[in-house]
Amino acid sequence: MSPRPDLGPKPRLGYTASSIDRAAERRADAAALAALENDARSRSYVIGGELVVLRKATPVHDPLFTLAEARALGRSAELVFLGFLDGAARFALALDPSTAEGFKTREEFIVTDLRSIAIRGLVDADHLPPVAEGKALLHWHARHRFCSNCGAPTNLVEGGWRRDCPSCKGQHFPRTDPVVIMLPVAGERCVLGRSHRFQAGMWSCLAGFIEPGESIEDAVRRETREEVGIVCGRVAYFATQPWPFPTSLMIGCHAEARSEEIIIDRGELDDARWFDREEVAAMLLRRHPDGLTTPPSVAIAYHIIRAWVEDEVEP
Amino acid sequence: MSPRPDLGPKPRLGYTASSIDRAAERRADAAALAALENDARSRSYVIGGELVVLRKATPVHDPLFTLAEARALGRSAELVFLGFLDGAARFALALDPSTAEGFKTREEFIVTDLRSIAIRGLVDADHLPPVAEGKALLHWHARHRFCSNCGAPTNLVEGGWRRDCPSCKGQHFPRTDPVVIMLPVAGERCVLGRSHRFQAGMWSCLAGFIEPGESIEDAVRRETREEVGIVCGRVAYFATQPWPFPTSLMIGCHAEARSEEIIIDRGELDDARWFDREEVAAMLLRRHPDGLTTPPSVAIAYHIIRAWVEDEVEP
Repeated sequence: MSPRPDLGPKPRLGYTASSIDRAAERRADAAALAALENDARSRSYVIGGELVVLRKATPVHDPLFTLAEARALGRSAELVFLGFLDGAARFALALDPSTAEGFKTREEFIVTDLRSIAIRGLVDADHLPPVAEGKALLHWHARHRFCSNCGAPTNLVEGGWRRDCPSCKGQHFPRTDPVVIMLPVAGERCVLGRSHRFQAGMWSCLAGFIEPGESIEDAVRRETREEVGIVCGRVAYFATQPWPFPTSLMIGCHAEARSEEIIIDRGELDDARWFDREEVAAMLLRRHPDGLTTPPSVAIAYHIIRAWVEDEVEP
Repeated sequence: MSPRPDLGPKPRLGYTASSIDRAAERRADAAALAALENDARSRSYVIGGELVVLRKATPVHDPLFTLAEARALGRSAELVFLGFLDGAARFALALDPSTAEGFKTREEFIVTDLRSIAIRGLVDADHLPPVAEGKALLHWHARHRFCSNCGAPTNLVEGGWRRDCPSCKGQHFPRTDPVVIMLPVAGERCVLGRSHRFQAGMWSCLAGFIEPGESIEDAVRRETREEVGIVCGRVAYFATQPWPFPTSLMIGCHAEARSEEIIIDRGELDDARWFDREEVAAMLLRRHPDGLTTPPSVAIAYHIIRAWVEDEVEP
């Protein structure tokens, strides 16, 4: 085996290690939530579809608004209660996406998507987990204003953690979609793929939604066989990352590849091939001679790939 | 540490290790699916809400019907394509639940819930994963016949793997809810709890839904603190189990308990306390002097608890 490459200090995985206290027991207390909405210490993130509104500041921008400020920005939809941070309540407000889009030209704001905010470090990293929580929750509301059971309009209750149907009395809870994201490995080599929507030169892990009736391990094996034709044996869990694009939970794994030939599903992937450890190390370090890279370190794929390169996993 | 107890051979975890080929690439081919519906080799499971219809047989009952037989049973709703097994297509048909209920008195059928079928071994264990797949999928259809985005009735497409809205053009995919199920441990002791709905004497792991913006590890720590007031540190992934009651994915973990005092959330739990390894071994073996037990081995809780008793995990 090649000597273990020196990849430097390990960066933090984005959107994880939330220090928010979700205070789930408060959600059912509508009066207490209303009081928190009017509490001067309370703050809200402002999210318009894929866009997050930040107030320009140095060295990082400020994603927090008082609730009065947030509501004054324009037409808004749901307000959801995220929990407590530093003793004060945190909310997320759904601003009309076109209003958020319009703020892109305003001097006092930075308005961009959460991926860019995370990758470019536009806000303190501690804001990423609660913004991820708010974005996922607000996206769910935006797509679930009607009852899937009977078609009637539903109402937000419990601080945004449930929607109730006044017609059929159905209760609906926020949705989180489990996704497997995996690196098939065999000795000194691993398989990376390129999705059609990737920027030029970027290669990453394979990924796919876990289906009803499927374990994590079975989903890893099925998706790997479907996307690249590789048969996998053992599967080792690595870590998870909330991924609010829009409402996924990325479940990272390493998988033992038991076959060699790659047969690409061109509907899913632009390309896929075997890489050796040394080449992948250069990609992680952004020193690949052809400019090939892995995803950035805010994404779990970077950490899954790096853990294998550093020889810290054995599926 | 006490000597490792002998718990005998390890039973199989229910609903896992599916040998079905889901053949996802066939789902979009409506003509091919229609041909499979008419293929004499095709078979269907018949599920009416929580009930599964079996044909009486020895030594185990038969859950498979030809599609003509299945449709002749009575008023049915969705038919979903599960994949291929032994070279033939497998489907699951949603029978009207009251019709299924009525079959309980019919001599030729055994009609009961899937939990009982699994625990009592009423069918060959290989049927459990596809029945779980079908039950979860059909439950999703039953609760999602309307568009959550606009309220219009939606149509089943792709063999049951998507519903499309003719009005807003929204596409809706089957839902799987990730749930953490965990055993907090500290040295020779672990924490078990009792839900209000448990049968007398049964104790199990703690569990709860993963929320938007949360990793598996964070959800384990939050739920353990909420339900029993215990602070957890390290979390070790153990295994997953599809749990079609109705559409969960159980993600089993062991957690390092860093505090001792138990504060029970009585809204969630009937009771919770520390158990030592020896007592839990007796519960697994069903030899506890007071008749206390763990859940049966079809459930992942049994395997999470057993792995700790057998000293095979270290969170």
